[in-house]
Amino acid sequence: MTTTIDAGTIAALDERDPLRGKRDAFVIPDGVIYLDGNSLGPLPKAALRELKLAAEQEWGQGLIRSWNAAGWFDLPTTTGNRLARLIGAEPGEVVCTDTTSINIFKALHAALSLRPGRATIIAEGTGFPTDVYMAEGVVSMRPGARLKLAGIDAPDIEDLLGDDVAVVLVNHVDYRTGVLRDMAQLTERIHAAGAIAVWDLCHSAGTMKVDLDTAGADFAVGCTYKYLNGGPGAPAFVFAARRHHGRFAQPLTGWWGHASPFAFDHAFRPGDGIRPMLCGTQPILSMRALSGALDVWDDIDLEQVRAKSLALTDLFIALVEERCGRFGVTLAAPRLHAQRGSQVSFRHPNGYAVMQALVERGVIGDFREPDYMRFGFAPLYLRYADVDAAVSILHDILANEIWRAPRFAARATVT
Amino acid sequence: MTTTIDAGTIAALDERDPLRGKRDAFVIPDGVIYLDGNSLGPLPKAALRELKLAAEQEWGQGLIRSWNAAGWFDLPTTTGNRLARLIGAEPGEVVCTDTTSINIFKALHAALSLRPGRATIIAEGTGFPTDVYMAEGVVSMRPGARLKLAGIDAPDIEDLLGDDVAVVLVNHVDYRTGVLRDMAQLTERIHAAGAIAVWDLCHSAGTMKVDLDTAGADFAVGCTYKYLNGGPGAPAFVFAARRHHGRFAQPLTGWWGHASPFAFDHAFRPGDGIRPMLCGTQPILSMRALSGALDVWDDIDLEQVRAKSLALTDLFIALVEERCGRFGVTLAAPRLHAQRGSQVSFRHPNGYAVMQALVERGVIGDFREPDYMRFGFAPLYLRYADVDAAVSILHDILANEIWRAPRFAARATVT
Repeated sequence: MTTTIDAGTIAALDERDPLRGKRDAFVIPDGVIYLDGNSLGPLPKAALRELKLAAEQEWGQGLIRSWNAAGWFDLPTTTGNRLARLIGAEPGEVVCTDTTSINIFKALHAALSLRPGRATIIAEGTGFPTDVYMAEGVVSMRPGARLKLAGIDAPDIEDLLGDDVAVVLVNHVDYRTGVLRDMAQLTERIHAAGAIAVWDLCHSAGTMKVDLDTAGADFAVGCTYKYLNGGPGAPAFVFAARRHHGRFAQPLTGWWGHASPFAFDHAFRPGDGIRPMLCGTQPILSMRALSGALDVWDDIDLEQVRAKSLALTDLFIALVEERCGRFGVTLAAPRLHAQRGSQVSFRHPNGYAVMQALVERGVIGDFREPDYMRFGFAPLYLRYADVDAAVSILHDILANEIWRAPRFAARATVT
Repeated sequence: MTTTIDAGTIAALDERDPLRGKRDAFVIPDGVIYLDGNSLGPLPKAALRELKLAAEQEWGQGLIRSWNAAGWFDLPTTTGNRLARLIGAEPGEVVCTDTTSINIFKALHAALSLRPGRATIIAEGTGFPTDVYMAEGVVSMRPGARLKLAGIDAPDIEDLLGDDVAVVLVNHVDYRTGVLRDMAQLTERIHAAGAIAVWDLCHSAGTMKVDLDTAGADFAVGCTYKYLNGGPGAPAFVFAARRHHGRFAQPLTGWWGHASPFAFDHAFRPGDGIRPMLCGTQPILSMRALSGALDVWDDIDLEQVRAKSLALTDLFIALVEERCGRFGVTLAAPRLHAQRGSQVSFRHPNGYAVMQALVERGVIGDFREPDYMRFGFAPLYLRYADVDAAVSILHDILANEIWRAPRFAARATVT
């Protein structure tokens, strides 16, 4: 079979790419085609610069004085305010803090505090597991509270909505299949049922113009270490719509969420605005790396990011189906742009071994049970030529059955 | 008044100090006498080395592969196992994770899960505020639960113990006065009342041989950024005695606490041992700095640390009282070794201004409302000569009323 997409076409795509200059902002190892930015984004040069500054100067020389002089104490809000634009929020609606799991816990409790007469939480049984686990944890502490899982208790979220539903926790993009939800439409349905919408943006933030405020979202959470490139385990974020400020409560009431954290009162008084979403002292070194990572985004047009994301995934789907379709790979991602995130999964009965063979050849994607080969396409540092090269390597591995080598058989845990 | 402690005596103390070589393991800025290691420890050279390795090599070059190849995923347990020796615990009883505030929340819930028929939490009304705030948060979610504060509802913890008390949260060393509790004795009284003891080690870990297991402590929490020098906001730790493993539960049930975190089950099953104290993805860069900071401790004899801590604080108390006693400074720390932590507070009506003047002269301590000047003495990098020099500067500021300069009057927030 000859390909219908030739090298000239691909070169032209890269030449016309308005984001092509951004690749230089990252450290990309030689010989690596990195299709796992949906799991851990690569190192932005600005993050390394800020991290060194934070360690050598701010900590090493400034010591305790840097809590004020270097703005450490305000990092959750200053980074949150910068991140706000990327998810369609206003400054003052977002803080970077803690982990996605813990922020889910806060957001679910905050939602329950706004719907005192209702006791049901809906989550997605096929979503990222920690979302469900945290919802179980919330339910375990509240007598009468119940958890219902879409995809398990009923096919869809809409089938579970009812008078007792307080809150729906939903993934904007599914971590396994890459399916994108219509945030405005689903939020409207959740609100029509009298419930609160909590959006998990882990797999959409940094790949498109997320419109939390326009969509009417109530709360949102997400991580910063995937497409936002904040570093391994970088502090997560949590959003609360301004209309809920001063009204919601959550039980992780630590001193960073206090109205006067340095008055050392012996009773908790929640701070204004988004502040009650804060709890304890944050990991400043990780936070300063995140701050550097956000520098890369300051001049980014998110419409260009989304357009390139769709073009990269279109190209990948077309090339894989054209060159590799006869080797048993099956698309497990939406063909429609409106339903597609920035990742593409293909299923293959030997997906695990195929992915190991790809990684050995420098094409880094990841594998999710039972048979999903998952490829993320981050528009800031990926070239169309990378997509072409990755598919050529995949073709070689499949056509020559390289994946059958015994070294690819053993299952190891990967995140 | 002539001092009874002359320069020769102090030089001899430094010469005989078995820990004197450890100062070289730290970055101490020129012109600084750092008496605030009880708030933020200085930069260990090994922490900087590990941080650069983590950023440049593990993240920059290893990318997603470092979750396994660099041991990132296991850092909470590997760092916890190394920290265990410093607090008198066994490997497998401690993890480094999240923040002290959040670990308090977990430990209180874990304690409540072991005492289902009891509803009262006791905390210290004059302890570090976040301890009380987190206890308030726990109580806010549990119908019937009550919080009683020693120092407010009754003079002492012992006065509040009774049949309904499930758990007592107590500081090993008071953050303001430096008073050290007898852990074994108080734990015994708490147990005699049928309750669970949760110890906050923030101000004792790294200054003495803490004996959690010998004292029979049930749970413990603490931060790693004070005397352990893990870096600003470094991940905190949480301890659960082995006899409680497999029996306690806490509601922050994230995927890192799951029995099979990579199986991506849709129902939570807690992991073995200490593992259910884990929740979400940890800030790896901050965690790797902590890992480097722990290198400094590997060959440390904690008896030597405690002996030097007491000698440094003895010297400081003696010199301040001798040279500065007539200027209105009053000791607010115990004279008895058995009751003293590694910090010494003096009260002064103009303590805030005096502390600002000290900081300007390079003597960094801190201030706590209403009038506490707080000085921490970390045996790993402080010299007896530093104590002598610090007191000389304090004397100059008090004798010449340098603190009256208008620039020292304005209150600013410091952590």
